[in-house]
Amino acid sequence: MVFVLERLFNPESIAVIGASNEKGSIGYTIFKNLLNSFKGELFAVNPNHPEIQGKKSYRSIKEINREIDLAIIAVPAKIVPKVLEECIEAKTKYVIIISAGFSEVGNMKLAKELEEIAKKSKKMRILGPNCFGILNIKHNLNATFIDSSRTKIPEAGGISLVSQSGALGISLLDLIAKNRGGIAKFASYGNAMDISEVELIDFLAKDRDTSVIAIYIEGTKNGKEFLRALKEASAKKPLIVLKGGKFEETSKATLSHTGSLAGKAEIYRAAFKQAKAIEAENIVELVNFSRIIEKQPLPKGNRVLVITNGGGCGVIAADHAIKEGLKLAELSNSTKKKLSEILPEIATVANPLDLTGGANTEHYRAAIEAGLKDDNVSSIVVIALFALPSLNYELVDAFPKKPKKPILFIALDSASIKLIDKLETKGISCFTNIYEGLKSLAMLTEFAKSRSNR
Amino acid sequence: MVFVLERLFNPESIAVIGASNEKGSIGYTIFKNLLNSFKGELFAVNPNHPEIQGKKSYRSIKEINREIDLAIIAVPAKIVPKVLEECIEAKTKYVIIISAGFSEVGNMKLAKELEEIAKKSKKMRILGPNCFGILNIKHNLNATFIDSSRTKIPEAGGISLVSQSGALGISLLDLIAKNRGGIAKFASYGNAMDISEVELIDFLAKDRDTSVIAIYIEGTKNGKEFLRALKEASAKKPLIVLKGGKFEETSKATLSHTGSLAGKAEIYRAAFKQAKAIEAENIVELVNFSRIIEKQPLPKGNRVLVITNGGGCGVIAADHAIKEGLKLAELSNSTKKKLSEILPEIATVANPLDLTGGANTEHYRAAIEAGLKDDNVSSIVVIALFALPSLNYELVDAFPKKPKKPILFIALDSASIKLIDKLETKGISCFTNIYEGLKSLAMLTEFAKSRSNR
Repeated sequence: MVFVLERLFNPESIAVIGASNEKGSIGYTIFKNLLNSFKGELFAVNPNHPEIQGKKSYRSIKEINREIDLAIIAVPAKIVPKVLEECIEAKTKYVIIISAGFSEVGNMKLAKELEEIAKKSKKMRILGPNCFGILNIKHNLNATFIDSSRTKIPEAGGISLVSQSGALGISLLDLIAKNRGGIAKFASYGNAMDISEVELIDFLAKDRDTSVIAIYIEGTKNGKEFLRALKEASAKKPLIVLKGGKFEETSKATLSHTGSLAGKAEIYRAAFKQAKAIEAENIVELVNFSRIIEKQPLPKGNRVLVITNGGGCGVIAADHAIKEGLKLAELSNSTKKKLSEILPEIATVANPLDLTGGANTEHYRAAIEAGLKDDNVSSIVVIALFALPSLNYELVDAFPKKPKKPILFIALDSASIKLIDKLETKGISCFTNIYEGLKSLAMLTEFAKSRSNR
Repeated sequence: MVFVLERLFNPESIAVIGASNEKGSIGYTIFKNLLNSFKGELFAVNPNHPEIQGKKSYRSIKEINREIDLAIIAVPAKIVPKVLEECIEAKTKYVIIISAGFSEVGNMKLAKELEEIAKKSKKMRILGPNCFGILNIKHNLNATFIDSSRTKIPEAGGISLVSQSGALGISLLDLIAKNRGGIAKFASYGNAMDISEVELIDFLAKDRDTSVIAIYIEGTKNGKEFLRALKEASAKKPLIVLKGGKFEETSKATLSHTGSLAGKAEIYRAAFKQAKAIEAENIVELVNFSRIIEKQPLPKGNRVLVITNGGGCGVIAADHAIKEGLKLAELSNSTKKKLSEILPEIATVANPLDLTGGANTEHYRAAIEAGLKDDNVSSIVVIALFALPSLNYELVDAFPKKPKKPILFIALDSASIKLIDKLETKGISCFTNIYEGLKSLAMLTEFAKSRSNR
């Protein structure tokens, strides 16, 4: 069962059933995304048109007359049973049912009908229905209806994202892209009539391209297997989980959207803890935790050095560090001595290290280098207010490439945000919000500690 | 004493002592900002140059030979005593000492010297030293060294901001501007050798242009007066406060930056509560709380309606609403009936109200109107994922102008962020983060409740 989903993410042939010429429709966008991304054989299935987006259109998947690796179904709910039967007859290996309108809207009869049909094949596997598709960035596979003119798709990287909700999956991808996180694989699994989060987690745990697994889940149908999958995966790589539907009122809401009743938050929280999965409190944390753990080395302790050119900003950053369980590093005497020779006369060598309003690139470079060399420092947080005229964009040069300790840059004003792209390329994790940055660093520190205790 | 600071914020004549021709210097930027903004009489004082930025330069403030309303001092610390003496001799009314290098860097001798000089005049009032200046947007007064090519200055509005830290003041202004908040007055008061937060709060409490007071404070020198000022001000208008230096370690850090030892967080927390001031946990909250309370009407209850086109987003928003103490509104039967006639067939009329992926502007309009009319609904949160192709930018038309109930828009993807400017203009408060939006709405709801209990 281990690599059972390998071919789903790496198909050599794809048929889009419901491929369309109507701009803005789901069938149009999926087919277009595949035309633009997929290197394998691509087929359009639509009995009403001889051609779809310039490619020959088949009347049914059977008419293609060969075994297709992956069929994507984007037709109205009531037609899904018929085309699913045809997929079985055509010996299709994997099916993604994008279409909605089944158990999640209370149409249990149609949902049941689908399940009965699915039972006819022991081989064919189904993702969905009511889902958003999959991505495999390295395989150039975009089998989703993301409109790339509206939503950013992340670059290739090590985060794989599994989302029960399609819509939230889109938001998360967009947020990951905006924050320069990199994606390996993405799957939205919707009503989970066959393939569930359990199998996806099992697959991603063994997937070489995946270094971090991020999960949005509302409710599982098999708590025992879910816990087992979480445990096994987290023994191999970090897992970040966000649970939706935490209260009785919101648990009801999940029924009408993925057809699953969300379980009690406390039970899930306990399961995450037992499995050593990291729980995020909101979608921003899910993204931040994933990208910092993907990008930064693990800190060898909890002592952070805060470097700033604005006293108040240093105070606030240090407040958040301590609140989140980190400690302010006590600089060694030799570091103190060295810095006092290099830094502006007005600056006090302390932590937070306020380089004062006159600080320039050289002062920042000296401070960062000192922090990297000092064994008392586990991680470094850099804040640079660009409102102060002594700084310019050469500040990027003050940062090392791929540092051996975690370095965060916190961009607090509009001007310093312009540094983010270059800093992220160098391996620095950037934030526009002090407390989100420090909370992410605290999570990374906690993770490093739990890892070293194993 | 009441309007004692009136003339500080509304001077008719200003002299900049240390005005400079050297681009990027503080004396250059302050003088340039005033040249570009101030409508009154402006004088440059710099004995080394006959002209500053095209204006005649005086050798000293005394040479101007008239009583100046406001002198701004931006010269090296050791020269400050001399020019301060001259200000007294010239009968200057207000002085802002921008210069740093006094008690905050441990130079107590120089600090003492300044205090002795200040005592010679009973009339002249001093803001600073070690501060960032003031803004009075309606009076076209920018007496700060904000470099407008680097930092955004907010438009005119009702928020007045008092910041002990200059650097954090800049970040906050930039963040307010970025989030379309409007500013009345701004003051950074630094070491507070004369004018402190107490007088500034007293003044802003009576200032007609100020509808919300936002404060960043590390420590006060007069706790009793500070509490009195907070109490009196909060009886008149909302106060949002962020305390910096909450821990022993960070309290030490404030010493070397505004020369004041920050007091214990618990004592401040208790004082804020007693004074009915609203405490923000971080700078983003300080900005969000200020702008939502400035912009939105007070809700008549705690029952929120969540409208979305993505099920998972609705679940998450509802989770945060409940977590923050809000309740999901139970729609009236007539509302339910009306909506079920208008909304997409696939949509379930519930709360969160998931209009489903096919929702368009008309569906959003119907949902928002229904929420505004239904007495069971106190406030409305709207999420629109633009990744879904059935939406376009006409969605702005679905929102009323200046609604009678609070309406929040949460932009979850890159495309929907483009709606924010137009929606803010209509009076909708926009967020790019679900939990920050819901936390702000919860704060507004709590404030409305406490207000109605008075």
